[in-house]
Amino acid sequence: MARVAVIDLGSNSFRLVVFTAQDDWWKRTDEIYEAVRIGEGLGATGELGEPGMARAQATMEVFAHFCAASGLTADEIDAVATSAIRDASNSPEFLERAQEASGLRVRVLSTEEEARYGYLAAVNSTTLGDGVMLDIGGGSMQLVHVVGRHARELDSWPLGAVRVSELFLPGDGPTKPKQVRELVGYVKGNLERAPWLERSGARLVGIGGTVRNLAAAAQRDLDVPEAGVQGYIITRKELDRLVEELAKRSPGERAKFPGIKPSRGDIILGGAIVVQTVMEVGGFESLEVTEAGLREGVFFERYLGEPPRFDDVRRASVINLAAQYGMDPEHSPHTAHVARLALGLFDELAAAGLHPGDASERELLWAASLLHDIGMTVDYDDHHKHSRYLILNAGLPGFDQRELALIGQAVRYHRKGMPSLGPFAGLAMDGDAERLDRMATLLRLAEDLERSRDQLVRAAHVAVADGTVRLDLQSDGDDRVPRWAAGREVELFARAFGRELSV
Amino acid sequence: MARVAVIDLGSNSFRLVVFTAQDDWWKRTDEIYEAVRIGEGLGATGELGEPGMARAQATMEVFAHFCAASGLTADEIDAVATSAIRDASNSPEFLERAQEASGLRVRVLSTEEEARYGYLAAVNSTTLGDGVMLDIGGGSMQLVHVVGRHARELDSWPLGAVRVSELFLPGDGPTKPKQVRELVGYVKGNLERAPWLERSGARLVGIGGTVRNLAAAAQRDLDVPEAGVQGYIITRKELDRLVEELAKRSPGERAKFPGIKPSRGDIILGGAIVVQTVMEVGGFESLEVTEAGLREGVFFERYLGEPPRFDDVRRASVINLAAQYGMDPEHSPHTAHVARLALGLFDELAAAGLHPGDASERELLWAASLLHDIGMTVDYDDHHKHSRYLILNAGLPGFDQRELALIGQAVRYHRKGMPSLGPFAGLAMDGDAERLDRMATLLRLAEDLERSRDQLVRAAHVAVADGTVRLDLQSDGDDRVPRWAAGREVELFARAFGRELSV
Repeated sequence: MARVAVIDLGSNSFRLVVFTAQDDWWKRTDEIYEAVRIGEGLGATGELGEPGMARAQATMEVFAHFCAASGLTADEIDAVATSAIRDASNSPEFLERAQEASGLRVRVLSTEEEARYGYLAAVNSTTLGDGVMLDIGGGSMQLVHVVGRHARELDSWPLGAVRVSELFLPGDGPTKPKQVRELVGYVKGNLERAPWLERSGARLVGIGGTVRNLAAAAQRDLDVPEAGVQGYIITRKELDRLVEELAKRSPGERAKFPGIKPSRGDIILGGAIVVQTVMEVGGFESLEVTEAGLREGVFFERYLGEPPRFDDVRRASVINLAAQYGMDPEHSPHTAHVARLALGLFDELAAAGLHPGDASERELLWAASLLHDIGMTVDYDDHHKHSRYLILNAGLPGFDQRELALIGQAVRYHRKGMPSLGPFAGLAMDGDAERLDRMATLLRLAEDLERSRDQLVRAAHVAVADGTVRLDLQSDGDDRVPRWAAGREVELFARAFGRELSV
Repeated sequence: MARVAVIDLGSNSFRLVVFTAQDDWWKRTDEIYEAVRIGEGLGATGELGEPGMARAQATMEVFAHFCAASGLTADEIDAVATSAIRDASNSPEFLERAQEASGLRVRVLSTEEEARYGYLAAVNSTTLGDGVMLDIGGGSMQLVHVVGRHARELDSWPLGAVRVSELFLPGDGPTKPKQVRELVGYVKGNLERAPWLERSGARLVGIGGTVRNLAAAAQRDLDVPEAGVQGYIITRKELDRLVEELAKRSPGERAKFPGIKPSRGDIILGGAIVVQTVMEVGGFESLEVTEAGLREGVFFERYLGEPPRFDDVRRASVINLAAQYGMDPEHSPHTAHVARLALGLFDELAAAGLHPGDASERELLWAASLLHDIGMTVDYDDHHKHSRYLILNAGLPGFDQRELALIGQAVRYHRKGMPSLGPFAGLAMDGDAERLDRMATLLRLAEDLERSRDQLVRAAHVAVADGTVRLDLQSDGDDRVPRWAAGREVELFARAFGRELSV
């Protein structure tokens, strides 16, 4: 088991996150947070103020205690500082004090290093191949031009949400159109330096608390159960509407806006306008949100080595989650065989012309097959529901929210019940109800055939004749029970594929 | 790690359950089920019929494959048969066939052994000290008179739900009052043999599918989120109403009655009337439901050794669940210290006269303290909600549903938000909102003080003066951060204890 504690000394808050990696899974296993606001007053004086430094020093001491209590060694701790500490003229003094008090040594990241960690977070938690990574913090904003999953341009501007709000949107009242125009102009002026932005492709991936909060606010309009904002897509229209609504309100009212964290009331609008302007200048129609960020970037660099990129983010996410519950193909022959049977049936039924055989549907079916049993860790009873809960709440970076919901619902119906999109209908595209029917049916059939858990039914083949689909089983013994079990899915099969099933 | 596969060859279904025990936790980790209905036709002929035996044999083969695939050895498999196989004249022939096909040897339980396993399930999954255990299956019903947690009388009658339904409630229509009267008379006649029933005390604990289904049906009237029926209390009035409603309906309609499993439509009424009559004869006002049963009884006997009883069921349940997530006091010094701090504050505030200091509230606070972080296994974000989900869905045998909800809500509010009974208000007693406020406040304060996770704040003491509660900390270092953190709970503290807090 390897562990890394990444300590992120941000302008707004300090956060310590522990990542644990074991064999073939990794996850964030612990966290501690203090709203230190070390950047307070920095804009006016160019220096870290004494009250902020005192809070920061005490927090570093607590983090050191926390690391010691968790048995983390110096090698396993990586403390990094960004904008506020990078820019303040007296930060060497602070860093010395903090190190003396806590024993923790801090790396002050260059703007390029900070941008690179954001890039690593984005390409390892989304399927971004070509496009732009946007990371907006309290002090600075980074943009990275990504081509073929590589970082081609990395840049950083002092356009963080706290900084632009202090500069352009002071006061306690609603914002004046003139203030907004001035901020937009300022951002555009800054972006002149990045001519590549306008021809960087169609995809924009967003990182940071501002982006996550905007997604949470946009999500409220969708009547679906919420489980984080990973994979949420904010359209430009949604963002325009949010900016308009926020600008009408005072900072105090913004703090109460649904989805916005109270502590962000005074900085959300400034951040939103920066994001909006980047979208306008770059011609982006939407912003894909990822929950990963700087801290994950630091972790990925250590965990993945060279090259610091997962081969296939979606595949890595599914295997990672399955492996956390011992259900990855390597550790669970049952899971591996259910996936094999389900995909085999999918392919043969497609070849027989009974469904489109769409590759992305096939991938979702594969994911559902691998994850169908992880909920057994909660309780055997209702484990189909527990599996869905774990999938939705842990998330699968690389999949969008609609895809996550389809995986979750297929898993939910892998034992019984008539499949339905249920509370996730609001995320669905045309044909998703039919997709879900097919996925749940094939997963359930595969599970029926694997009832003995020992691959007794080695393979199942499809033969279509006279409007009936016959399932031919190749078994290593008495397969009456799997046959009965599969035979019970006749009704479901007819609904999903419009044919009679015989086993 | 020790494992036991208990195979239960019941009259209605065969079920294989795998229990896993590791260090200081145990849980049901796997299960497979077939609706074999081996008892079909037994009433008429006294013999197991050929179709049922063929299904049973094939199922035993699948179970054997399942055990082999799971790496279970013969020593780790315990197959037990009850009523149908015990009573059929041709069961030796069946058992030989089954053993030949599957290699699995079956123990046919005597009525007394069967009753004893039900008793072990009841005393290890509820706080039953003195009273009666009722276990109703498809073929037989067992009653055990429990005195001082020991089984004083064990008896069994051929009053299973399938058997009495076949005998007294045949046909497809609603039931006639005369049929009900005859069944009640028959049950009463049988119960003459148990004169101890009438003076066995006030508590009745129920086991088996009939009881669980009746609880699920009764639970529907409560508008609270459902998470199993463990600890649900069915009043006699509720049961009377259910019997009345079910009797009006045909078996087909009963199968669609909310809470009743479709496959039980034809036998639920017969079973309900048997339970009702036991309650009438014994003078019981309510029936406490436990989800444990014969299979758990077999497991507990192996797991616990002699005496086959947990010292304290509630304590064992909490430690068991915490230990599954590495959060029991032995493995998590943090959890242990949070519990110590929270209970210390609870006691000192009670001594200062600021709350009643109720012992059962103290126990719930202890449970919440031990379980507050188990949800971190799902995801760090929202782990307070995940902890509640795991608690509600895994259940805590020995606690009733109201107590479980209070533990869950205290855990839910251990980080932020204003505590509320939320969706569980329907279970609450007078004063529960105040209890929850106190529990959540103390848990949150303890968590604040343990922010560094290394017991930096060794102890916290309470001093009351001039209407203000002062918290004095004993710390092994700089405790500014825990003090700030605890200081943020002023508002919550005032609500819970009606006093100003200063740290």
